[in-house]
Amino acid sequence: MHVFVTGCAGFIGSHVVDRLLAEGHTVVGYDNFSTGRAEFLAEARACDRFHLVSGDLLDAATLKGAMGGVDHVFHLAANADVRFGIEHPWKDLEQNTIATFNVLEAMRANAVRKVAFASTGSIYGEPEIVPTPETAPFPVQTSLYGASKLAGEGLIAAYCEGFGFQSWIFRFVSILGERYGHGHVADFYRQLLANPGELRVLGDGHQRKSYLYVHDCIDAMLTAIQRSTENVNIFNLGTNEFCEVNDSIRWMTAHLGLRPTLQYSGGPRGWIGDSPFIFLDCSKMTKLGWQPTLTIQEAIIRTLEFLQANRWVLDKR
Amino acid sequence: MHVFVTGCAGFIGSHVVDRLLAEGHTVVGYDNFSTGRAEFLAEARACDRFHLVSGDLLDAATLKGAMGGVDHVFHLAANADVRFGIEHPWKDLEQNTIATFNVLEAMRANAVRKVAFASTGSIYGEPEIVPTPETAPFPVQTSLYGASKLAGEGLIAAYCEGFGFQSWIFRFVSILGERYGHGHVADFYRQLLANPGELRVLGDGHQRKSYLYVHDCIDAMLTAIQRSTENVNIFNLGTNEFCEVNDSIRWMTAHLGLRPTLQYSGGPRGWIGDSPFIFLDCSKMTKLGWQPTLTIQEAIIRTLEFLQANRWVLDKR
Repeated sequence: MHVFVTGCAGFIGSHVVDRLLAEGHTVVGYDNFSTGRAEFLAEARACDRFHLVSGDLLDAATLKGAMGGVDHVFHLAANADVRFGIEHPWKDLEQNTIATFNVLEAMRANAVRKVAFASTGSIYGEPEIVPTPETAPFPVQTSLYGASKLAGEGLIAAYCEGFGFQSWIFRFVSILGERYGHGHVADFYRQLLANPGELRVLGDGHQRKSYLYVHDCIDAMLTAIQRSTENVNIFNLGTNEFCEVNDSIRWMTAHLGLRPTLQYSGGPRGWIGDSPFIFLDCSKMTKLGWQPTLTIQEAIIRTLEFLQANRWVLDKR
Repeated sequence: MHVFVTGCAGFIGSHVVDRLLAEGHTVVGYDNFSTGRAEFLAEARACDRFHLVSGDLLDAATLKGAMGGVDHVFHLAANADVRFGIEHPWKDLEQNTIATFNVLEAMRANAVRKVAFASTGSIYGEPEIVPTPETAPFPVQTSLYGASKLAGEGLIAAYCEGFGFQSWIFRFVSILGERYGHGHVADFYRQLLANPGELRVLGDGHQRKSYLYVHDCIDAMLTAIQRSTENVNIFNLGTNEFCEVNDSIRWMTAHLGLRPTLQYSGGPRGWIGDSPFIFLDCSKMTKLGWQPTLTIQEAIIRTLEFLQANRWVLDKR
C-alpha cells in the first residue's frame, strides 16, 4: 500500500508509520510539528520508503499536493487536549473538524477513497450504558473535543455515502505506551519528579477510565481494516477492564518507590467535560479475532518506564 | 425577551420574527439575504421593536457586535439544501458548522446563554428504528447536510457543559406553509407551471416522508422553550403521520386539476444521501402538551395555495 499518515510525528502516528514501514508499505507522513516530535521519526527517516512532508492540515493546497498516488489515509492528527477545550474552542474546530474536512477534500481531489480515523470514546459524553457499545443511544456531547471528533466522524460517513469512500472509524479510550507524553501518567510523573512528596490529583480519584496499549491499538486498527469491509466501519477500541485514577496512582507510586501525600481537587470529574466513567464495549472488535496483549496496569508501567528512560518527552513544547 | 434571530429573512426565521414581535418581544434579525427574502420581513419592519442587521454569520465581528443586550438566540440560518451537498461540500461546513460556532462565540462574548437551534431529522441517516426517537442508536451520517447539523448540535451541547449555556435543539422533518419556496412542493409546482402535462419525480415515488406546518413548528419551539428546562433539550418535531411522495403528487395534482404523466428517475432514494423513510417519534414533544393543528395533506395544500398566490417566491435566487 501507499499510505498517507497525518500526525505522523505524534505518539500514535509515529508508531503507525513504523509499523506500516515494517510491513513493507510506502508511507507519506504529514505533520506540522506543533506537538509532534522529529525524534519519533528517527527510525522512519532511515527507510527509503518513507517520505516526510512538513505541513499544516489547514493549508489545504500543500495537503492536496502531498497526497498524490496514495491508496489509503490514516488520519491521526488532532488537537488531543480534551481538558483545555474551553480555553480555546476554535482549536478543536480548526484542528479536528476543519482539518478532517481538508483531509477528505484532498482525498477527493486525489481519488483516494480509504480512510482510517482516530476518533474517541469522549463522543459518548456521559453515557447511560456502560460498557458503552458503538450503537449506544444518540449521545449528548460534553466536551469541545468530543464535539469536534463527532463532527469529523459525521463528515467521513457523509463522504462515504456521497463520494464512495470507505472508512474505519476508531473510538479510542486513552492510549498508553512508548512515546506517550501527554495525559495523566505524564502529568503525575512530571509532578513527582519536581516534588516526590506530593501529588495533586484532579477530581476525587474515583474517576473510572479505560486505557489501551499503543501497539494493541495499532494491531486492532490493522485487523479491522483487513477484516471489516462495510462502507463505514465503526469500532470502539479499549480493553475489557477499567481502573480508578487511584489505582493508577497506586501502581505508579509503588513502581517509583514513592509515598506522596495526595491532594485531591475534589468532585467526580477532573475538569469540565470530563466523563467520570469511560469503559467501552469492544466486543465488535474482539469478534474480529483481536485481543489486547497488555492489561491496563502493564500498560501504565510500560509507559512510566518509557518516561523514566526518556524524560525529554516530558518537556513542555 | 430581547431575542436574536439568525436567518430572520428565511422561511421559518421570518415567521419566528413575526410571532415573537406579536408576543411583545424585542427582536434583532440577522440575515445575509443569500436565500432570505426582504419581502418576508415587511410586517416586521413596520414594528419599532424589530431591528434588522444585514450580515453574514461568517463575519464574526459583525455578528458579535450585533448581539449586545440579547437574552435568547434562535439560530435558524442554514444552508438547507440537503440535495446538493456533494456539489459543494464546503457550503454545509461553512454555513452550518462554522456559522454555528460563530453564533456560539458571539453569544459567549455577549454573555448570552440561551439558544434554540434548527437541526434536522436528517441526522438520523437511514435509521433502524422508525418512528425514530431522540435516543435512537448512534446514527451514521448519509448527507453532508446531516453531518453539518450533527456538528452544530455537538458544539451547542459542548457549550452548554463548558460555558453554562442552555439549549433547545429541534430535529425537524420538512417544514411546509406560507413563505415556503424550497423543496418538493415548490419543485413540483414550478414544473407543472412550465409543463402541466408532465412531472419528473426523483426516485420511485414511494419514499415515505413526514412534514410539519410552519406555525405548528413555531408553536412547538415556543412550548418547548417554556416547559423544558434541562441544560440540553432535544426534541424531534414532526407529525404523527407520514406520506409517500406519490400521495403528495396525488393531492397536489387534484388541487390543481391536472393529470400529468409521471416520469420517475427510479430507485428508492431521490438523490444520494436521501433517506427513503423519515418518520420521527415526536412523543417527547407531545407530552409537553403540544399537538400539530394541520395534517400533512392540509399543510401541503396550504403551501400550494400560498405558492399559487405568490409565484414570485418560486423565482430562483
